[in-house]
Amino acid sequence: MPESLRGIIKPSTSQGSTSPALTRVAYEESLKAMASNTAVLRDCGAMLSALGIAVLPKSDSEPLKSAVLPVALLPRPFPASQFNEAWQLGSIIARLMDNIAVDPEWLVTSLKEVTEADDFTRRLVDICREVYIHHGRDHSKDIRLHLLRHDYLPTAICNRLLQVEVNTMAAGFAGMGTQVSAFHRMTASAALGDLSGLRLPDNKPIETFAAAVAKAVEAYNEKFGRQSRSICMVVDAPEDNECDQRFLETALLADHGISVHRRTMAELAKNAYIDEKTQLVFVPSLLDPERMVEISLFYFRTGYGPSQYLDDSHWDIRKRLEFSNAVMCPSIPQQLSGTKKVQQLWYSDPSVMTRFGLTNEEADMMRQHFAVQVDPSTAEETVAEAIKNPMAWVLKPQREGGGHNMYGDEL
Amino acid sequence: MPESLRGIIKPSTSQGSTSPALTRVAYEESLKAMASNTAVLRDCGAMLSALGIAVLPKSDSEPLKSAVLPVALLPRPFPASQFNEAWQLGSIIARLMDNIAVDPEWLVTSLKEVTEADDFTRRLVDICREVYIHHGRDHSKDIRLHLLRHDYLPTAICNRLLQVEVNTMAAGFAGMGTQVSAFHRMTASAALGDLSGLRLPDNKPIETFAAAVAKAVEAYNEKFGRQSRSICMVVDAPEDNECDQRFLETALLADHGISVHRRTMAELAKNAYIDEKTQLVFVPSLLDPERMVEISLFYFRTGYGPSQYLDDSHWDIRKRLEFSNAVMCPSIPQQLSGTKKVQQLWYSDPSVMTRFGLTNEEADMMRQHFAVQVDPSTAEETVAEAIKNPMAWVLKPQREGGGHNMYGDEL
Repeated sequence: MPESLRGIIKPSTSQGSTSPALTRVAYEESLKAMASNTAVLRDCGAMLSALGIAVLPKSDSEPLKSAVLPVALLPRPFPASQFNEAWQLGSIIARLMDNIAVDPEWLVTSLKEVTEADDFTRRLVDICREVYIHHGRDHSKDIRLHLLRHDYLPTAICNRLLQVEVNTMAAGFAGMGTQVSAFHRMTASAALGDLSGLRLPDNKPIETFAAAVAKAVEAYNEKFGRQSRSICMVVDAPEDNECDQRFLETALLADHGISVHRRTMAELAKNAYIDEKTQLVFVPSLLDPERMVEISLFYFRTGYGPSQYLDDSHWDIRKRLEFSNAVMCPSIPQQLSGTKKVQQLWYSDPSVMTRFGLTNEEADMMRQHFAVQVDPSTAEETVAEAIKNPMAWVLKPQREGGGHNMYGDEL
Repeated sequence: MPESLRGIIKPSTSQGSTSPALTRVAYEESLKAMASNTAVLRDCGAMLSALGIAVLPKSDSEPLKSAVLPVALLPRPFPASQFNEAWQLGSIIARLMDNIAVDPEWLVTSLKEVTEADDFTRRLVDICREVYIHHGRDHSKDIRLHLLRHDYLPTAICNRLLQVEVNTMAAGFAGMGTQVSAFHRMTASAALGDLSGLRLPDNKPIETFAAAVAKAVEAYNEKFGRQSRSICMVVDAPEDNECDQRFLETALLADHGISVHRRTMAELAKNAYIDEKTQLVFVPSLLDPERMVEISLFYFRTGYGPSQYLDDSHWDIRKRLEFSNAVMCPSIPQQLSGTKKVQQLWYSDPSVMTRFGLTNEEADMMRQHFAVQVDPSTAEETVAEAIKNPMAWVLKPQREGGGHNMYGDEL
């Protein structure tokens, strides 16, 4: 800096860099200042590029052309107490989901009415019934891997986070979330001073996802006396969110020596091989179709919506995989335990939660963090209220993947 | 697969996936097969995009536009014994470099003739003399961080790796190398079967670089009673290799809570503030120039060539930083210990290596892995031989950054 200015802005040398107190005003001013500072925006842009916070808009034809994703410039300050509550709920929800998944009888019974109205859920329930009830497969003895994402909204209701849903299938953004978290460390430091003054929680879900997959592969090898180092990621193609999925592949390759074979439902329907006697599953190598690769685990990033099953062969391979010895992430009971109907059931009746292993205290804690959910086919009063006041409600079909809900006037 | 084919390609179920033996023929066939397989190439392309194996050709004006870097499709098989030898040499070389760096008298004397011919080296030697000899700063008591890269070429000479040079400054590709290693795990698995059959060494230099920087920051805070969580990366702008540098920034942010402030020599010359009494160094925040950030460590990714010092103010800030208490990576003695003249000196005279702490055995091991290096000003015979047989020699100036050497007829 020019000598003349030194007296004015000479920093105190008795402590580290000074961080302004993180008031709402300071935060908003920082945000505005960043958004209008070309040097800072260039810095952010280069960091987004380097972190691979991107999609592949033409993943099939132009896989080298990525496009940077929009992200918030700064992480949003958030009350630590609310964060910690949601964090604690994580393992309770996982336990609930797992206990529901190993009770296929209850799932089939509870979803009976949904299957009458919804053909997609019916087909899943049919497979669940055939595999786990008619053929008596004991899901509690299967290797089960849950890769869950719980979505919350901050609300004014007692200043609480309210959970919107639990994703038991194809939960996205574990990879991007890890990268965005690194990006936000950069911007928070630029805007608000040294990171030491901020309490940014460690946020590397991709590492824990990969570690969980590796554990499941290990359990498979131990249980069946195999040495598989390959999993199959079942994907849509084209898939513009492929970069997010590749972060898991990278973590598995670099940290666990596990290869990921990306296959569509159509490819699996055509050429997955399931040995009838051993129920081991193999897919042909992409490079050399005569080389069959043993797959220890199928990780579904598709298969959660009816449009992803193009014909009966897709349903057939899904069923045959469910009968096999490969680990399914998720299995069909796990997938069903994440349906909106099941979530509505345990939300509206705490005895469902205690039946599935939660203590009364845990069930109470859960209820405090869930938005009210009702089944419109059985809740006349609520439906009437929602018609009167549509801005206060959302109508959700039995679908995953976002974009299917109806809001406000659409109700 | 179609039922009719099952009998033919039904895999053995008594073992994991079958990996073909890794012969040269199998390797080359795999490589050819990959290069002509559209599905595999698409897979590779998407993975390269997701891994951020890219440059920013217009990092200044279009930081969101990255371009994928060319890489080899497959990792090259390499004899484990040669790899292990080079690996063992790593710590020996680091010790040698460090012991040379703390002997500025020897450096200044040894480089005397070079300074007469080369103005750039002269200016570095002048600073070295002023700081460490005239002002008597004891470099052995400074915090010293070496981020080195050793370059080897496989040769037919006793089938050995021969070292081409040691980079003591601005060594690139620790980030890209980590990513390419993950990419090669994918392609090797696709081409050659399960990874378990291959011995791919763990290769995450960016993690060890970041851990080393964090240690140096910690040492600084302890030594001076500070709480700095900020380092400065001194960079060129524009810098198309910015993505590589950002991987270090990401690792520091996400794993160590350390922020990286990218600044050019020009910016530092203009507005770095060095407190005269404490010799602590501060740079203004990019966002709010009135907020000064204490920098514990300067990591130079520029400053290794004369064109990177645009005027005397750049030399002045380099010198003032060298006098300061911030850690310099590298310090000027460290930079000088990596000059080609110094490498030639210890290569051609084992007593230099033993003088700087190597055992006779270590010095022998070193000599077995270095290409012959002579100083053309003192080696008439070799020069005559090189003129006769220019394909066997390379003429290297006292420059870093690549692209300066002369080969074959240019000699």
